Amino acid sequence: MQDIIKASIIGASGYSGAELLTILQRHRHVKVEGLFANTSSGKKLSDVFPRFAGRIDTTLESFSADAASMSDVTFIALPSGEAMNIVPELLKRDNRIIDLGGDFRLKDASQYQKFYSRNHTAAQYLSSAVYGLPEWNAEQISSASLVANPGCYPTSAILPLAPLLKENIIESKGISVSSLSGVSGAGRSASLEMSFGEVNESVRAYKVGTHQHTPEMTQTLGDIAERSVALTFVPHLLPLTRGIYTSTFAAPTRKTSDEEIFSIYQKYYGNKPFIRVSSTAIPEIKNVNHTNFIDIGFRLDPDNNQLILLSAIDNLIKGAAGQAVQNMNLMFGFDETEGLW
Amino acid sequence: MQDIIKASIIGASGYSGAELLTILQRHRHVKVEGLFANTSSGKKLSDVFPRFAGRIDTTLESFSADAASMSDVTFIALPSGEAMNIVPELLKRDNRIIDLGGDFRLKDASQYQKFYSRNHTAAQYLSSAVYGLPEWNAEQISSASLVANPGCYPTSAILPLAPLLKENIIESKGISVSSLSGVSGAGRSASLEMSFGEVNESVRAYKVGTHQHTPEMTQTLGDIAERSVALTFVPHLLPLTRGIYTSTFAAPTRKTSDEEIFSIYQKYYGNKPFIRVSSTAIPEIKNVNHTNFIDIGFRLDPDNNQLILLSAIDNLIKGAAGQAVQNMNLMFGFDETEGLW
Amino acid sequence: MQDIIKASIIGASGYSGAELLTILQRHRHVKVEGLFANTSSGKKLSDVFPRFAGRIDTTLESFSADAASMSDVTFIALPSGEAMNIVPELLKRDNRIIDLGGDFRLKDASQYQKFYSRNHTAAQYLSSAVYGLPEWNAEQISSASLVANPGCYPTSAILPLAPLLKENIIESKGISVSSLSGVSGAGRSASLEMSFGEVNESVRAYKVGTHQHTPEMTQTLGDIAERSVALTFVPHLLPLTRGIYTSTFAAPTRKTSDEEIFSIYQKYYGNKPFIRVSSTAIPEIKNVNHTNFIDIGFRLDPDNNQLILLSAIDNLIKGAAGQAVQNMNLMFGFDETEGLW
Amino acid sequence: MQDIIKASIIGASGYSGAELLTILQRHRHVKVEGLFANTSSGKKLSDVFPRFAGRIDTTLESFSADAASMSDVTFIALPSGEAMNIVPELLKRDNRIIDLGGDFRLKDASQYQKFYSRNHTAAQYLSSAVYGLPEWNAEQISSASLVANPGCYPTSAILPLAPLLKENIIESKGISVSSLSGVSGAGRSASLEMSFGEVNESVRAYKVGTHQHTPEMTQTLGDIAERSVALTFVPHLLPLTRGIYTSTFAAPTRKTSDEEIFSIYQKYYGNKPFIRVSSTAIPEIKNVNHTNFIDIGFRLDPDNNQLILLSAIDNLIKGAAGQAVQNMNLMFGFDETEGLW
Repeated sequence: MQDIIKASIIGASGYSGAELLTILQRHRHVKVEGLFANTSSGKKLSDVFPRFAGRIDTTLESFSADAASMSDVTFIALPSGEAMNIVPELLKRDNRIIDLGGDFRLKDASQYQKFYSRNHTAAQYLSSAVYGLPEWNAEQISSASLVANPGCYPTSAILPLAPLLKENIIESKGISVSSLSGVSGAGRSASLEMSFGEVNESVRAYKVGTHQHTPEMTQTLGDIAERSVALTFVPHLLPLTRGIYTSTFAAPTRKTSDEEIFSIYQKYYGNKPFIRVSSTAIPEIKNVNHTNFIDIGFRLDPDNNQLILLSAIDNLIKGAAGQAVQNMNLMFGFDETEGLW
Repeated sequence: MQDIIKASIIGASGYSGAELLTILQRHRHVKVEGLFANTSSGKKLSDVFPRFAGRIDTTLESFSADAASMSDVTFIALPSGEAMNIVPELLKRDNRIIDLGGDFRLKDASQYQKFYSRNHTAAQYLSSAVYGLPEWNAEQISSASLVANPGCYPTSAILPLAPLLKENIIESKGISVSSLSGVSGAGRSASLEMSFGEVNESVRAYKVGTHQHTPEMTQTLGDIAERSVALTFVPHLLPLTRGIYTSTFAAPTRKTSDEEIFSIYQKYYGNKPFIRVSSTAIPEIKNVNHTNFIDIGFRLDPDNNQLILLSAIDNLIKGAAGQAVQNMNLMFGFDETEGLW
Repeated sequence: MQDIIKASIIGASGYSGAELLTILQRHRHVKVEGLFANTSSGKKLSDVFPRFAGRIDTTLESFSADAASMSDVTFIALPSGEAMNIVPELLKRDNRIIDLGGDFRLKDASQYQKFYSRNHTAAQYLSSAVYGLPEWNAEQISSASLVANPGCYPTSAILPLAPLLKENIIESKGISVSSLSGVSGAGRSASLEMSFGEVNESVRAYKVGTHQHTPEMTQTLGDIAERSVALTFVPHLLPLTRGIYTSTFAAPTRKTSDEEIFSIYQKYYGNKPFIRVSSTAIPEIKNVNHTNFIDIGFRLDPDNNQLILLSAIDNLIKGAAGQAVQNMNLMFGFDETEGLW
Repeated sequence: MQDIIKASIIGASGYSGAELLTILQRHRHVKVEGLFANTSSGKKLSDVFPRFAGRIDTTLESFSADAASMSDVTFIALPSGEAMNIVPELLKRDNRIIDLGGDFRLKDASQYQKFYSRNHTAAQYLSSAVYGLPEWNAEQISSASLVANPGCYPTSAILPLAPLLKENIIESKGISVSSLSGVSGAGRSASLEMSFGEVNESVRAYKVGTHQHTPEMTQTLGDIAERSVALTFVPHLLPLTRGIYTSTFAAPTRKTSDEEIFSIYQKYYGNKPFIRVSSTAIPEIKNVNHTNFIDIGFRLDPDNNQLILLSAIDNLIKGAAGQAVQNMNLMFGFDETEGLW
């Protein structure tokens, strides 16, 4: 473990990049050296995000692999489709990378093609990329060169489902996942459909059954459960800035109880610092916003043989930048919670 | 058909009561005679709702059955549990009643006891009360003395499910219903948990699997499908004032197609003025708010043998006051859409 | 007075255009014949605004002066700077026009140049254009060919100030106007700064002391007061969809009282159907939203010799489309309130 | 300077109390010993605020002066009117106190009576209480036994005005202050008027010209300017959870310039860690929320001889808990920014 490592952020002018920087500023073992943001290069960070004024006066640079690889770790906070153009160059320079986008999460390039509607140009790295879900893959993460940080929706859906699938207490087919997201999940950009006038006082589902986070969920849950998992995923856009709420319906494989469900969660998550499971309380977004926690609750509906799982995260923290730092902590041997409380 | 009928509203100081009044003001065949609101009696309506100032200057009265029954029709817009104390007196006076609360929706008094946590004190009227879902029960409604206006959640869930269950194209078991509601569904009252500071920038599920609208859904769908229907219902509270969005997961009974699903909807709803079904568009709350429409959309997920139904309503209009006026139109032989466009 | 007139809307794909259409659909003496919207031409209105589906299935057309002038009245609901290219052609064809933008509000083309940052290309029509403030200019409006519909902020600021300036009860200099607006005032378009993530949970002032509505206020108030009026105007953007709230500080010219202020308002506005003045109640946006009302309240602060005026309007109705229809009613001899209640 | 001090919070179940606890948890020199909350005593903090679950599991206690005075410093985060019953007992026990309420801010008990509508029962402490505005009273604060933490509105209004009044560049009479506040300023309690359905999509002014923060502003500004200051204050309630935005109109005493105004701010605030002044940028609430910053901007309107000041703070941090910790840092010789970045 080094005392202080150097970090770079590529995509520092987006919501996740800015959140990452905020967290890393608090981290006692990290010094942020490079902030890269192509369209805003040459601007001061505080021109893009005035909230940093008086605290961080770094100028944003154009990305170059040489400059970025001066750091010990590089965070890529770009829209999906861009990391695959950068990662090969960085890996050649022995940089360790945490990619917050979707380019290296799926193992199967044809699935990437199908759900992201583009060819994968760096498919040779898919097999060695480690899916950065710290509660399940800590060992692999600790030695990884390239960590694919989980998507926001998958984080909120996989964590409640994984222990129950692993213990075979719920069916691995016919799972229904309904997720509700604030707007920051869509990134920071100009569009009519994300304008306040269109989002406020409304709700809409989108990419129903076809969202690119679906194969990420089934791949990861399948790996954990060691059998094929099938689910239907419906995301919704809500008038809030931050937060994801996921409600999942699954069928128990046999008669079970609140106590048993809770004890399974205790077995897997009892010592995990960022997972709070309750057998009585219902999660609420406001309890996790601005934190790296995921709150998990559940209810059995024995008459209909259904188990309902409920979870809440801050999409920019546990669903993006916070989890990325949690991964970095594992990669560099820091305390898993450093910078995150 | 009478040219002009007289109407009373009991509970005129609540959100549904006020919405009802707004609609009835536009109705060419209705004169509102009595506005009853016990806790606000003696106040002017415009003191309770200043938006009526300069247009409606009625004084709110204490309820009396004699006064209310001077009208041809009485709308009861009270919290559940109160109508059952009033309905018997009104029926004795030959008043025709539309109850917007939950007291007369369930046929089985023991179900009422279980889900509403109180004894039913007027259970003798449960069998003759007509469930006021105009698209399915128009004939019964037209001659009813007592109409039980559907709940907001059931309206949003039953209408998309009913044709598919009736045609046996989806399984009648294992249905999962996730609904998202604005705050006005909870009525107008002081409570910490409904305060802006607690609701804004958050989401929470509540009464998971135990909400009192669940038996209303299964009873109505069972009647329509002519077989037992089982579903799990999870309501959520959202930071919006109006609107309900319902996402339902059901399993097709056999291979089907978008065209077939759409043609079933056309068969049942093609000529219904307030139901808009699309095989391509996704419903959004903003398209139905301040209207009596329900928008319905759907997606097949054939890989997982799932059908996802999506619907949006304004909870105060199609989910309460608008549907009540639609029922009144049927009861008195007016055009079904009068006052509602 | 004709029984039914024909109307066209240029700019039907914007918020004001759509609101106008909604109001005109309710109007008993208007038939909307042409809906023009260049960038969306060829699309159905219901593709742009799905809320119209099932009710209005008109296809949007490209603008042509010949087509538009088939109507008795043409509403122009375009961004400022576009009407001046259209108006001359329409006036040649004897069309009567109501322009909801800013092109014909200022009498002085150099002021237009200064505040709108462009040359006026149809300045010859500025003198004959009538400022469409129905409560003050009804007679001129009734015979006008070209009505310049007031801006949203000026409507909210002028109406409370005008009677007091005319009666010389407040100073005509040193007036401070602070206005708070929802986002729909900025129109319907894609921009980062109007995105939900940037607007929600925030407030910002903009164009402080330089907003183009400032000379519109001083010109109109000067005409009414028959002396020069000077004010400082600070608009703010708020996280709401609709509504403007204006708080104005002015100095009484002499000792006055609540009774006197109220009696002045009664003198000018006592019989105006859309102005509600209270000497006790404080206006709230929710009381006027979705209506053509302006609510006005006031408080004297005699220790500091200040009078505070408070007003609330719906920016899309009294501040745009509703006032435009009110003007049309005056132009064609209809009841002033037709279509607006 | 002690290495670690002990702190108590009275009123830990309110918004300010919880914010205080959040900040103190990050503070390297403070250990929170007592959390007092009468109505919630016996409950766990995490039952009241589930967001603390898994991190702080303290049980809330009933207040006793003996228990509280075991601490080195006691924060009182109670509604105004309650601290005056507690402060005398604590002072007798040599406790150092920071009161976040309004009881000890006004020097004149008759003003307290007038604006708070109750008698002051501990008026003998008014003269020795120090007004806790760190940027102006640091020296007095450092040795104070009782610090009266400023109100949220006064913080946002005084800081931009003070240097300009002190330098006599603006008139000390005829100042108009319009403030916009999120709901958390009103505290955490059940009321219809603060319910989401009443606050959302609306704005209202309240206590126009009569708010209890007015004499706090004039007293403090008068002390700084060394002459009498008069202003009219109009607060507004907005649909946001956090944040205050204040727009102030003042008349320059003579011809001035942006450069001169900015240089005055530089003189007084150039080295203040939590004040950011810009001569070009307009403050926005989102830039200060969740921070202890106040952002100040300004615009001259020379045609009307007006200066407009704009400021933004987080009402719970710079307007309450953050400023309280800043005061504590001064009282105990810690770095002024400790715990606050």
